[in-house]
Amino acid sequence: MIIVMKPQASSEQIEHVAARVQGSGLRPVPVPGEGQTTIAVLGDTRSVVIDRWLAMPGVERIVPIMTRYKLASREVQKQTSCVPLNGDVVGGARIAMMAGPCAVESLEQTMEVARRVKAAGAVALRAGAYKPRTSPYSFQGLEEEGLEILAEVRRVTGLPIVTEVLSEHLVERVAAYADVLQVGARNMQNYMLLRALGEVNKPVVLKRGMSATVEELLLAAEYVMMSGNPNVMLCCRGIRTFEDHMRYTLSLGAVAYIKKVSHLPVIVDPSHAAGERSLVPPLCKAAVACGADGLLVEVHPDPEKALVDGPQALTCEDFDTLMAQLRLVAEAVGRTL
Amino acid sequence: MIIVMKPQASSEQIEHVAARVQGSGLRPVPVPGEGQTTIAVLGDTRSVVIDRWLAMPGVERIVPIMTRYKLASREVQKQTSCVPLNGDVVGGARIAMMAGPCAVESLEQTMEVARRVKAAGAVALRAGAYKPRTSPYSFQGLEEEGLEILAEVRRVTGLPIVTEVLSEHLVERVAAYADVLQVGARNMQNYMLLRALGEVNKPVVLKRGMSATVEELLLAAEYVMMSGNPNVMLCCRGIRTFEDHMRYTLSLGAVAYIKKVSHLPVIVDPSHAAGERSLVPPLCKAAVACGADGLLVEVHPDPEKALVDGPQALTCEDFDTLMAQLRLVAEAVGRTL
Amino acid sequence: MIIVMKPQASSEQIEHVAARVQGSGLRPVPVPGEGQTTIAVLGDTRSVVIDRWLAMPGVERIVPIMTRYKLASREVQKQTSCVPLNGDVVGGARIAMMAGPCAVESLEQTMEVARRVKAAGAVALRAGAYKPRTSPYSFQGLEEEGLEILAEVRRVTGLPIVTEVLSEHLVERVAAYADVLQVGARNMQNYMLLRALGEVNKPVVLKRGMSATVEELLLAAEYVMMSGNPNVMLCCRGIRTFEDHMRYTLSLGAVAYIKKVSHLPVIVDPSHAAGERSLVPPLCKAAVACGADGLLVEVHPDPEKALVDGPQALTCEDFDTLMAQLRLVAEAVGRTL
Amino acid sequence: MIIVMKPQASSEQIEHVAARVQGSGLRPVPVPGEGQTTIAVLGDTRSVVIDRWLAMPGVERIVPIMTRYKLASREVQKQTSCVPLNGDVVGGARIAMMAGPCAVESLEQTMEVARRVKAAGAVALRAGAYKPRTSPYSFQGLEEEGLEILAEVRRVTGLPIVTEVLSEHLVERVAAYADVLQVGARNMQNYMLLRALGEVNKPVVLKRGMSATVEELLLAAEYVMMSGNPNVMLCCRGIRTFEDHMRYTLSLGAVAYIKKVSHLPVIVDPSHAAGERSLVPPLCKAAVACGADGLLVEVHPDPEKALVDGPQALTCEDFDTLMAQLRLVAEAVGRTL
Repeated sequence: MIIVMKPQASSEQIEHVAARVQGSGLRPVPVPGEGQTTIAVLGDTRSVVIDRWLAMPGVERIVPIMTRYKLASREVQKQTSCVPLNGDVVGGARIAMMAGPCAVESLEQTMEVARRVKAAGAVALRAGAYKPRTSPYSFQGLEEEGLEILAEVRRVTGLPIVTEVLSEHLVERVAAYADVLQVGARNMQNYMLLRALGEVNKPVVLKRGMSATVEELLLAAEYVMMSGNPNVMLCCRGIRTFEDHMRYTLSLGAVAYIKKVSHLPVIVDPSHAAGERSLVPPLCKAAVACGADGLLVEVHPDPEKALVDGPQALTCEDFDTLMAQLRLVAEAVGRTL
Repeated sequence: MIIVMKPQASSEQIEHVAARVQGSGLRPVPVPGEGQTTIAVLGDTRSVVIDRWLAMPGVERIVPIMTRYKLASREVQKQTSCVPLNGDVVGGARIAMMAGPCAVESLEQTMEVARRVKAAGAVALRAGAYKPRTSPYSFQGLEEEGLEILAEVRRVTGLPIVTEVLSEHLVERVAAYADVLQVGARNMQNYMLLRALGEVNKPVVLKRGMSATVEELLLAAEYVMMSGNPNVMLCCRGIRTFEDHMRYTLSLGAVAYIKKVSHLPVIVDPSHAAGERSLVPPLCKAAVACGADGLLVEVHPDPEKALVDGPQALTCEDFDTLMAQLRLVAEAVGRTL
Repeated sequence: MIIVMKPQASSEQIEHVAARVQGSGLRPVPVPGEGQTTIAVLGDTRSVVIDRWLAMPGVERIVPIMTRYKLASREVQKQTSCVPLNGDVVGGARIAMMAGPCAVESLEQTMEVARRVKAAGAVALRAGAYKPRTSPYSFQGLEEEGLEILAEVRRVTGLPIVTEVLSEHLVERVAAYADVLQVGARNMQNYMLLRALGEVNKPVVLKRGMSATVEELLLAAEYVMMSGNPNVMLCCRGIRTFEDHMRYTLSLGAVAYIKKVSHLPVIVDPSHAAGERSLVPPLCKAAVACGADGLLVEVHPDPEKALVDGPQALTCEDFDTLMAQLRLVAEAVGRTL
Repeated sequence: MIIVMKPQASSEQIEHVAARVQGSGLRPVPVPGEGQTTIAVLGDTRSVVIDRWLAMPGVERIVPIMTRYKLASREVQKQTSCVPLNGDVVGGARIAMMAGPCAVESLEQTMEVARRVKAAGAVALRAGAYKPRTSPYSFQGLEEEGLEILAEVRRVTGLPIVTEVLSEHLVERVAAYADVLQVGARNMQNYMLLRALGEVNKPVVLKRGMSATVEELLLAAEYVMMSGNPNVMLCCRGIRTFEDHMRYTLSLGAVAYIKKVSHLPVIVDPSHAAGERSLVPPLCKAAVACGADGLLVEVHPDPEKALVDGPQALTCEDFDTLMAQLRLVAEAVGRTL
């Protein structure tokens, strides 16, 4: 950490700050510059109340040097983590395709999609029983009934289930049915929920908030990991920008960057980012080419009848075609599908 | 609602869409254009599954005409709502100053601030007992103990308490102590929490999420109102943009716009937006000049010792000065303070 | 400047970087940390090719300490600059109102607005003869004819003229007619134009680019100032964000921040930011309350007939009302209008 | 185009608007809704002054239905345009690799890179003689001398030259040396420059502005095309968002979307987006997988000595490796390299 003093800071102020640094068990190294003094702070500064120093007279700003996350950092673990999924893993050579409808609507609909995506090579079924919706007037999911449908689909098809959990008080209930617990973008900084997921023995898919920085995403993962659950997959699903031709802007540079700084596997959800079916296949290919460890793709047997997000859902036939194309891209970058 | 068909849409597709609109109890009015056909949809479309129509073959996009929120709209209530606060209201001629430390740190600290801001003219004390923090390594608040301190401070000073509630399972507990329940920006779309707040008989401060549109904010308010609680104050506290000189970009245009389309009172939190003490007073004045009904301002007796957000806290002296200046601005726009 | 070395940087790499710093006539001060080494660089680093150092093996990133702008900085000049305008100044106690139609459409239209805004207290007429338009199919301004109309209006009313210059080859021509040369937001980083404006003996209004940081704006001003023209007024007119209820997001925090770090006067253009008439008055009041030194406001005698931006133009009556209200706000913050 | 009237609009206002539409040679079709009336406007509305209608009493907003661009639209030309480049084309099956240093620094440096990238399979050399720089204190390019170096390199290597032109008065000079004229992101809306490029018989690379929407990019292309030059390549190079781990956010969804709505070839510049060497290869692969028709990649023989943007430049060896990998990805999506 570097404390940058104001150009006009007095030597008393500099000494005062240095003394406070010392008092926190850290070592201050003042470097008097021509314009202004900086104070390098040596030691582990992650749990220091930076704000206190920033509020001291004469301090201009503080520049962090260490990353604020530890457990999620590639510094502490060089090789990519492999998160177990139904005998296979996410984070290995095989790219994990998780596909299914946005929402569970009925047993028939869910079963049909599950069969089709399994046949095409998906390793998990994604489908929402609880749906967080922007408007209170929209369909909110089948809830518990949806979970039961998912359990039945898994029993029949053998596909593990990825489904969203909206609140810490639902963690136990959803974990009783699902194989992977998903945290939605709107809940990425719901710390109560993150802590509760740390105490569950199931992998977690943590979606990047629509305006979260990568550091904030990794710190959110850190909440889950610190609470005891190392099996976190990060999911990029688009960020909010000024772009108006897609629902969100999918930042694949974030995927490449996260793979560089963190050992956690990264999956990509192009369906929510695009909001539009025709853009999903090119973005799926781009994500795989960029290094993603898995994809979350929405598939619906009859998108016109979907209760949620039909416009972005692929049909089962679209998905078959996509899988054939993706296999080639995966091989081109040394992976399998 | 207008359904815009693709230029190449066939007449069968247009008829199919029109039939589906009819089947939903609404009235379709196709308008054949030179390039492409549009279908006006008459009737209340708020609870229609738009996505279904959007997923139909030949549909290019759908343009909503009605606002998606009802209860929060100024269409349904012309005059600004007055939210009761300790015998006074928020939303009337008097601008409500709510001030206090970011976090409750001790009885002494909280009591001192409360006395000072009350003397300067604040109508409520704002202070956090539960703190949502980006990093799990940061101070997370005194929690229950903090609530007890707040209760004691209210008993002594008579100032009503505004404090944050992080989760639906904490609503009851916090409501037992606080006068106004605050939903933080990260929780604006925590629908479980919003619904739970709808069942409480206390006013709610709903902070705009850092990347929420105004429509999303009003739909979040709608969740609370639909669940039975009409006493919602909206709070603008900065949005996330590319600007890097402040923590967030404070959009006062949003304040002016919300005042135009909604009857709910709007308050502004310049402290979190700025993240820097010296920018707080000019933004407070701007907010009042722009039509805000209240302000949330951070004040700390000794910002250098604050556990959270010290750099943005005003000292008690700063607050006295600010109040004197704000009074003049309030009068200039026909309000009092 | 601080050079942050990677945690795994070797001592050879650190020495290599230090040697290169020394070779540039600066002084390196390596500070070995526990995790990673930082190298403080002492001396004036503004014209150093930072990229060269950043490209060296072992370097993680570089943290600038000094501001990159000099001439525009409040460090070099404590009091706000006063830019001369027709015997008065911009940057003094009086807030400069510059009002007029978006585009010059005819002599009658321009003259009428000029008379009305002058009567209401405006100190300059703003109107565009050359209009940069997003679509080539839109009206592009009366060009030279527009300049002649402006000259005639000035002759009759005595109001100085603020008008836009689109290109360096037009600088001389526009300067022959106008009193203040305006650089539009799209041209903020047109360095050829900025340099040409540096050689003109007329004040410049430099509009912030729609996605420019404050530092980039100040560096753009630096281009003009370095080339010999100190009379630069900065203009905030909204930035591009995800907000969709206004054309741009007006960041008044940027106004407060610029006033803190730069001595240049700052004016605000709420009309372009809002894109909607009803939002202009509250934003004008907010800008004045926040410390703006002037306003650019669009006024049209008959907005319905305007060729450009009618929806955001105030009528002459609206402007009269606004001036009366603004006068009160200006006085509340110790200014006049 | 749909004109949405305010809910409280009177029938006189509706008739007034309809009459004005009629008066513009278009056909109004009023559709009285339950809440509010909409007026569909039939006919070619591209050159209508929308603002006039928007400014009429009773009008709430206007919803465009037709795209505002014509010449660039895939509606008018179904197959992708092939822009000629040295006997080959951009926009065909072969993905065009354009590589080279950010800036021309010397004949030796430029020649070395040209030889190396040609050997590796690049079809053009990209290098800047004129450099638009954020700070006036930074290196601004070799200018005319740089152009002469580029001419010599082309003479020796046979590689066509892609280089930036900063201003309309430089178009002729740069066109005398270069094969492809590049418009930088900061100049995307420099309409004087765009028009001048329309009169040149050389292909143009038009970079997307850092905060331009896709529609604005296509309208900028329209300026060039309308002025007579159909050979426009669009270039995505990152947009400005809140993300802070890369210099810009590369939106590959924009690439997929542009390919859908426009027939112009699209190239991608991952180097400027990333600002960091290690992120360039994954983003190159992603761009190709996503459907890009070409890439602009920075390569420098010794990035540590580069005067501009060394940190993002690949070494010649890096480029060899990248080309080998990209070839596989290109084949996986049915292209060649």
